[in-house]
Amino acid sequence: MKIAIYGYGNLGRGVECAVRQNSDAELVGVFTRRDPKSVQTASGAPAYGADQILDFKDQIDVVIICGGSATDLPKMTPALAKDFNVVDSFDTHANIPAHFANVDAAAKEGGRVALISAGWDPGMFSLNRLYASAILPDGADYTFWGRGVSQGHSDAIRRVPGVLDARQYTVPIQAALDSVRSGRNPELSTRQKHLRECYVVAEDGADLKAIETAIKTMPNYFADYDTTVTFVSKEELAKNHSGLPHGGFVIRSGKTGRDGEHSHTIEYSLKLDSNPEFTGSALVAFARAVVRMSQRGDSGCKTVFDVAPGDLSPLSPEELRAHML
Amino acid sequence: MKIAIYGYGNLGRGVECAVRQNSDAELVGVFTRRDPKSVQTASGAPAYGADQILDFKDQIDVVIICGGSATDLPKMTPALAKDFNVVDSFDTHANIPAHFANVDAAAKEGGRVALISAGWDPGMFSLNRLYASAILPDGADYTFWGRGVSQGHSDAIRRVPGVLDARQYTVPIQAALDSVRSGRNPELSTRQKHLRECYVVAEDGADLKAIETAIKTMPNYFADYDTTVTFVSKEELAKNHSGLPHGGFVIRSGKTGRDGEHSHTIEYSLKLDSNPEFTGSALVAFARAVVRMSQRGDSGCKTVFDVAPGDLSPLSPEELRAHML
Repeated sequence: MKIAIYGYGNLGRGVECAVRQNSDAELVGVFTRRDPKSVQTASGAPAYGADQILDFKDQIDVVIICGGSATDLPKMTPALAKDFNVVDSFDTHANIPAHFANVDAAAKEGGRVALISAGWDPGMFSLNRLYASAILPDGADYTFWGRGVSQGHSDAIRRVPGVLDARQYTVPIQAALDSVRSGRNPELSTRQKHLRECYVVAEDGADLKAIETAIKTMPNYFADYDTTVTFVSKEELAKNHSGLPHGGFVIRSGKTGRDGEHSHTIEYSLKLDSNPEFTGSALVAFARAVVRMSQRGDSGCKTVFDVAPGDLSPLSPEELRAHML
Repeated sequence: MKIAIYGYGNLGRGVECAVRQNSDAELVGVFTRRDPKSVQTASGAPAYGADQILDFKDQIDVVIICGGSATDLPKMTPALAKDFNVVDSFDTHANIPAHFANVDAAAKEGGRVALISAGWDPGMFSLNRLYASAILPDGADYTFWGRGVSQGHSDAIRRVPGVLDARQYTVPIQAALDSVRSGRNPELSTRQKHLRECYVVAEDGADLKAIETAIKTMPNYFADYDTTVTFVSKEELAKNHSGLPHGGFVIRSGKTGRDGEHSHTIEYSLKLDSNPEFTGSALVAFARAVVRMSQRGDSGCKTVFDVAPGDLSPLSPEELRAHML
């Protein structure tokens, strides 16, 4: 399959790494809104201007769109889905139905397959919520995130006056995990599930107490959590907090039996050194499925719920049955 | 969906419990090779003779076949797939390709959908091996079983002279789990991955030393493992070892990045109080998908790899996207 990467930030670079690990995948090029002459790709693949992509219509099987969910993807995915099979990682959960409708109309108009919201959450975590709830209808599921870097929360701290740079880790609380794993189906508040660790570089002479208070009382982002603020030097932030690790847990407990006498726990967890590289790897696997669905004559918008798992693998159905079932 | 249960042992009873938890499912009846007058179902559903099932052809959407993999399913599933949509839990991994071919021919002849090898292994564990390997091609996966009761190993012990009854637990070894989770992708021998705990009721005056030696040196079943043998009274076996718990772990570690510098671990685990009730619950979810695939005009043999996850859920695609993605 011939893949194009549209948008070349952390996620685009993650996709680029993943393409090289899949022998059935080939990178046509990277399409960027920057001046393509200024972009040196890690793999040596050519960089083109985003507006040149239609010239490559016959050379691309699927476009992996690596833009942000806030403003990029709501425009990019419907626009590209008219002319290309596409995959995106749209992750604003509340806006998925609207995004789906827009992309579906465009993909159907163009006779293309568009898969939205692939990755790990939404993505693999969504799949695990679905599988577990279908098998254990009498139960409850819980999603925990972390320990990992939240870019949105890190950005929110950077907007506080006196802050030069920051990194925020979302951390699941062990007692909550233990309580969920016990099968007791506890009611857990926001504060009981996660805490937030902030590493902050302040301007010289800034009022550290004021910064800490501004962070801890910030509505939506921090006010509902137990939050720690640690001031560090620019060098320390670069040395100890430059990675983008993430991960988390999806746990469902449920009961079966004549009278609910048997308890079961299904747990899925991820421990990721690099959030964008793992997400990029998932996008390439789902891109393979999109190409296959398109080759079979399908069209319209899809999600991970619509993809038969076998379509994700480079192995044939016969190989999968013989070796992986 | 109108479900028939074909075979009424532990697994058939597990399916019966699961049907009651799914409001879109209705149990037409239980079909048994025993005298149906001698069978009292837990839910009060009617019991019929296995040979009566063709009389119900128009009243059944899907038959869940609850027979053994050694001799029952290789005959039952192809025979029933000519006239009914069916689901089975065929679990002899090495014979899956042959079983698939037989069932596929029968289901295509009858224009029916047949799903084989559903449950948790094969089943959910297979799905997790596939998803994880598709996302992280540069990696290795490991499956651990237990702590749980192996019926096959318990039966093998019961065949040792002087043994009245026995229960065998397969136990994953913690050090092996830890080593796999570390991302080191270790090479592990059979002995390093699992140990086997045996609880044995011996005949009065039996040679306990001889029984222990016979178990520990039994080829295929125990000789390649560290095995413990504990003699217990009949009462103790009934009191402490009458359940059928099981579970296990599928773990894949893999690398990404320009030079494999980032490591990722995907882990799926099950902790089950009742193996047959959990398996039965999975069979009912996959039965829903079979009915939907059949309604769309599909036919032939399928496995869990061919089922779009959304088909497992009673929720509509719109509801799934809005609430579970």
